[in-house]
Amino acid sequence: MAGSSFGTVFRITTWGETHGRGVGVIIDGCPAGLALCEEDIQKYLDRRKPGQSRFTTKRNESDTVEILSGVFEGRTTGTPISLMVRNKDQRSRDYSAIAEVFRPGHADYTFDAKYGFRDYRGGGRSSGRETLARVAAGAVAAKVLKELGISLNAYTRSIGPVSIDPARFDLALREENALYMPDAEAARAAEHFLEKKMKEQDSAGGVVECRITGMPAGIGEPVFDKLSANLGKAVLSIGAVKGFEIGDGFAAADLAGSENNDPFYMKDGQVRKGSNHSGGVLGGMSDGAEIIFRAAFKPTPSIARQQDTVTRSGEETAIEIHGRHDPVIVPRAVVVVETMAAATVLDLLLVNMGSRMDRVKDFYGA
Amino acid sequence: MAGSSFGTVFRITTWGETHGRGVGVIIDGCPAGLALCEEDIQKYLDRRKPGQSRFTTKRNESDTVEILSGVFEGRTTGTPISLMVRNKDQRSRDYSAIAEVFRPGHADYTFDAKYGFRDYRGGGRSSGRETLARVAAGAVAAKVLKELGISLNAYTRSIGPVSIDPARFDLALREENALYMPDAEAARAAEHFLEKKMKEQDSAGGVVECRITGMPAGIGEPVFDKLSANLGKAVLSIGAVKGFEIGDGFAAADLAGSENNDPFYMKDGQVRKGSNHSGGVLGGMSDGAEIIFRAAFKPTPSIARQQDTVTRSGEETAIEIHGRHDPVIVPRAVVVVETMAAATVLDLLLVNMGSRMDRVKDFYGA
Amino acid sequence: MAGSSFGTVFRITTWGETHGRGVGVIIDGCPAGLALCEEDIQKYLDRRKPGQSRFTTKRNESDTVEILSGVFEGRTTGTPISLMVRNKDQRSRDYSAIAEVFRPGHADYTFDAKYGFRDYRGGGRSSGRETLARVAAGAVAAKVLKELGISLNAYTRSIGPVSIDPARFDLALREENALYMPDAEAARAAEHFLEKKMKEQDSAGGVVECRITGMPAGIGEPVFDKLSANLGKAVLSIGAVKGFEIGDGFAAADLAGSENNDPFYMKDGQVRKGSNHSGGVLGGMSDGAEIIFRAAFKPTPSIARQQDTVTRSGEETAIEIHGRHDPVIVPRAVVVVETMAAATVLDLLLVNMGSRMDRVKDFYGA
Amino acid sequence: MAGSSFGTVFRITTWGETHGRGVGVIIDGCPAGLALCEEDIQKYLDRRKPGQSRFTTKRNESDTVEILSGVFEGRTTGTPISLMVRNKDQRSRDYSAIAEVFRPGHADYTFDAKYGFRDYRGGGRSSGRETLARVAAGAVAAKVLKELGISLNAYTRSIGPVSIDPARFDLALREENALYMPDAEAARAAEHFLEKKMKEQDSAGGVVECRITGMPAGIGEPVFDKLSANLGKAVLSIGAVKGFEIGDGFAAADLAGSENNDPFYMKDGQVRKGSNHSGGVLGGMSDGAEIIFRAAFKPTPSIARQQDTVTRSGEETAIEIHGRHDPVIVPRAVVVVETMAAATVLDLLLVNMGSRMDRVKDFYGA
Repeated sequence: MAGSSFGTVFRITTWGETHGRGVGVIIDGCPAGLALCEEDIQKYLDRRKPGQSRFTTKRNESDTVEILSGVFEGRTTGTPISLMVRNKDQRSRDYSAIAEVFRPGHADYTFDAKYGFRDYRGGGRSSGRETLARVAAGAVAAKVLKELGISLNAYTRSIGPVSIDPARFDLALREENALYMPDAEAARAAEHFLEKKMKEQDSAGGVVECRITGMPAGIGEPVFDKLSANLGKAVLSIGAVKGFEIGDGFAAADLAGSENNDPFYMKDGQVRKGSNHSGGVLGGMSDGAEIIFRAAFKPTPSIARQQDTVTRSGEETAIEIHGRHDPVIVPRAVVVVETMAAATVLDLLLVNMGSRMDRVKDFYGA
Repeated sequence: MAGSSFGTVFRITTWGETHGRGVGVIIDGCPAGLALCEEDIQKYLDRRKPGQSRFTTKRNESDTVEILSGVFEGRTTGTPISLMVRNKDQRSRDYSAIAEVFRPGHADYTFDAKYGFRDYRGGGRSSGRETLARVAAGAVAAKVLKELGISLNAYTRSIGPVSIDPARFDLALREENALYMPDAEAARAAEHFLEKKMKEQDSAGGVVECRITGMPAGIGEPVFDKLSANLGKAVLSIGAVKGFEIGDGFAAADLAGSENNDPFYMKDGQVRKGSNHSGGVLGGMSDGAEIIFRAAFKPTPSIARQQDTVTRSGEETAIEIHGRHDPVIVPRAVVVVETMAAATVLDLLLVNMGSRMDRVKDFYGA
Repeated sequence: MAGSSFGTVFRITTWGETHGRGVGVIIDGCPAGLALCEEDIQKYLDRRKPGQSRFTTKRNESDTVEILSGVFEGRTTGTPISLMVRNKDQRSRDYSAIAEVFRPGHADYTFDAKYGFRDYRGGGRSSGRETLARVAAGAVAAKVLKELGISLNAYTRSIGPVSIDPARFDLALREENALYMPDAEAARAAEHFLEKKMKEQDSAGGVVECRITGMPAGIGEPVFDKLSANLGKAVLSIGAVKGFEIGDGFAAADLAGSENNDPFYMKDGQVRKGSNHSGGVLGGMSDGAEIIFRAAFKPTPSIARQQDTVTRSGEETAIEIHGRHDPVIVPRAVVVVETMAAATVLDLLLVNMGSRMDRVKDFYGA
Repeated sequence: MAGSSFGTVFRITTWGETHGRGVGVIIDGCPAGLALCEEDIQKYLDRRKPGQSRFTTKRNESDTVEILSGVFEGRTTGTPISLMVRNKDQRSRDYSAIAEVFRPGHADYTFDAKYGFRDYRGGGRSSGRETLARVAAGAVAAKVLKELGISLNAYTRSIGPVSIDPARFDLALREENALYMPDAEAARAAEHFLEKKMKEQDSAGGVVECRITGMPAGIGEPVFDKLSANLGKAVLSIGAVKGFEIGDGFAAADLAGSENNDPFYMKDGQVRKGSNHSGGVLGGMSDGAEIIFRAAFKPTPSIARQQDTVTRSGEETAIEIHGRHDPVIVPRAVVVVETMAAATVLDLLLVNMGSRMDRVKDFYGA
């Protein structure tokens, strides 16, 4: 397919462009009977809303979600949940420059190469607004997971070279700064760094980290649909993500086996691990420990500096990109990572329900 | 599904355990008319065959592939290609220790948690032998790609802390050393490093890098099935992989936009890029440049050192794992990464054929 | 998944209930560059619009389609096409009777059994309005097919016992009567029959037949995704369909091989068949002849006569269903069958593009 | 994909040609812990084995199944179950006639049209031997279903014009005659009819009927993956099937609503139906009544009579097909229909497990 769907049993399908009528998603396979209202979803969307700090675009969007189907008398019915966010601020402006020129670091050239032409208004389908649909869908998944005792928390781990200090880690601080960093000192340093980049008409990247707690062991499928592989795909499918790692990730490649293996022990009759280099996944399945993974975001490609490029008709030219762009997308991407992880984990939990004969028999009362 | 299939149009489905009758794969959706014989596949399998150096297990397997269907008079017929590699060296031994004890860093505990019990002989489905099926399928994909002018080359980038030096990079050297490193000096240093680890009854990890040349621009689907996302899933689904990055990957998070953006220019009437920080993918689609990505492998979990663990029945114990294990799996994993990438890329090329109305019309002569 | 998607490369996903905000569909995988406007779709929707004759419900709906995404400057962009039809006539009425009672022949009981409760307003997701989304999606498929020289024509073959006479068959007459029958005499007889049923507070069923011309040979996949199997699923997934047959269908079971086999001959250098008992499909693939198939629709379950049934709480009761119901759904289902066939055929045409190595090489210029 | 897979959670993928090394299937998603041995599968394969009566081909095949993976110590492990049946009787003969000539009623022409050439030995992938893989997979599904209290019974309903009499129906008689008819008198008449056809060098078709008992209500998904639609696809994907109907099927089109609706009543606290015109499916979901459906098989296309046809190179010619062919395939197809239904039903049962929030919470102990 053309790749606008994700998941097997909990399956989401997104649509929409930044300057069209809106963006939306269909969630198929959400269990029936979940209490759900627009506010449940809105609070996640608000976490990525523009215009909340000096580090985000001033595009004026309320990003209000509407539930178009699948909910009746406050509960999901089991039928597809259609969610839509209308675009409001579709400023009429002159796109002729962008229409004819390929912006470096953007998908302009590749869209043209694939489809022969493109919706050049603001990036079209490859705009960051596409992630609204992911967040809306993942918010629903997160609500299901919460009922199962599973919670997800993503945050900014680093902006450019400024990283949080594990010794100062405090998740409660995440909401206290514009950059969603769980470390006040790092947040201040990162803000200074960003201001410098902005003055230089430049942009920055960073790393988002996500933790999932409460997962039962054994979730994920052993070969291609490993929990780590599906999380990786979910995260790498977010625009601007260039890297993914779980547990110790690339650092694990430098460790010895004796350092990297997590020993098992017993506590309260439960199997536990004495460390968590694995990041909560062994053999592609959850091992009962906290799941922890990271996503690397490249710097925002839209910068006001002059860059060399070419036109659609093959002439060399230069471009300066002015307008409403975040100098860094990481803080707004935090909730995208968290909700994509929610959708991934819920899908694998539902797929897993058929994995054991005894449990299938119990389920059907046989 | 239970996750033993990968791909949409070029779709592979694998089966088999290390100590069962064998391992195999069904390839569905391979174009008809490709010249194909067992030797085409065997040469890829031989690259991961055990026993070829002092750094690999001494398990004695010829790993001979048989084509069971889908090829007639030397050409693929368009029907499913069934490939099988029989297990020969299924040494009868006493598995009772492994049967009852969870090996740290292995999938023993998670298999039990998911399915209630497991095939404990040598890791069962989570053994490295599972990758034989991937390599066999990917070898067929690679042959199709070769006919389209696309070639893939993976190699060892680092073993533990020993990394190749880009200044000395020479792909021709890859076959000259047991570690598949394209840098003779780094290979020697890595061999010393490994010997030390072996003496310490310990193991090492490393990084595999892969390059794909000859890709047309526009391959990959813009949202969930991005080329980078599907490659990421393919690679992260290989046992022991803990990280994936494309282009500059995690390093891109530290760059400024002005550093990370690749400028476009024209050459011979073609759009080209002046650098390749993107790793050949923009907006999830190939941008015509070389595709370059990396996979981080954790150290081999099987080590002879004593490790703390627990039994199935919940008693704490210790384990030493002796027997036939690679001190590092990276050199043998190189071909696995390369062939999984081949399967991924071919699938997206075939999916892409329906992306433009004018080309669909041409195809059907309308 | 929860089964709201259909197709592999041309993939449609529908949503919506009859008394919610509306119904809609996302089309993923439509080739880019197709000229498309709302009128292209509207004309198909108008064919199933209520209130057009005395044989259809008087529900007052304009059923106006909106294109929410995927079209730019009058052409499809290759990204998902989101189509929506708002519900207008959501009469506020008292549903308490229906809410508590299972209507015979409807999905009330099965929805409750599956999900624990249901959206009881007018049938919810199982209402005939669900087919609006199918028609909208299939209208787009039909437009693509037209550009490939493929056309589809469905019509009413019979209403209750009144069937068209092949000797009088004239497709042009289809639009001339309220029942979409290509035989004026049969249409008159069927109208009399229906009026009698209406007086009896009863309803009728019937058979829809569909013909597809212009199909190249070789479309369909040889095993599970046979053209006949996928058409069968497409048609049997329409509410109220209880049977499907292709070519001679059930009558073929009574024929001898010598009667049923279609002889081949040559004409103008093309392979042709001297008869078409197969209905245009051999071995699951199109054989170049006209494709012809039929769908059997049960009578409308909503009738004003008193029927025995039970309540949700398990008490026996009786029900009379008054209100806006078609005495026969067949005439309005004609376009649903035709458009579902269009979506099925287009998907298989796109999947087929990767079936031959030589054509894949041509496509990629290798 | 190329369509060799079927199912979403219980997913089967088949391979193999009649004159290659064998045929086989991978079952992915079978619940772990099912007791399974080769005899469980073999007894189903034996029901379609050739050479058991004068009405089947004399091809000498033991059709012995081997379990290659996924079973350990007599129980399924949750990993893919690979099943294989080797071809033994691959008589070396001269296929040059068939190679160059398109047999009427066969897939020779359509395979060539699709793939450019074909494995012409005995029909290749479109041979009836392809169904061996379906039966093997469905036998496993049937064993799972049996543990859930669900049983399936298919039988021959008619051979040519000779149909069973419902008044004489006795399932126990099915095994007593070569035609698998649950009516001894009809079986004798059908045998006479077949002998006449054989003397005339001709062949016959027929109808298979299948009943499924013990199904819980609510199985099947409401829109595209209706139980009736998926059963229809499963059955229509069997070679030679030209029609499918459920419940009253085509006859329902002639009934009035008052005749066709099944009234509900209560018995022992359970919702029951006073009749079963629906065939056990309402709104695409099981309604708790017996599921009953029928499949129409065309007559065997291979007949010894002379038939007009053309060669691959476009010359008109005539063909007589001698050799080992069943004069009717219906009796051997009975088990194919039954096992495909088993695979379909089990898949929908597993998909259904995630349909309700309360049951998901119970499952995960939340």
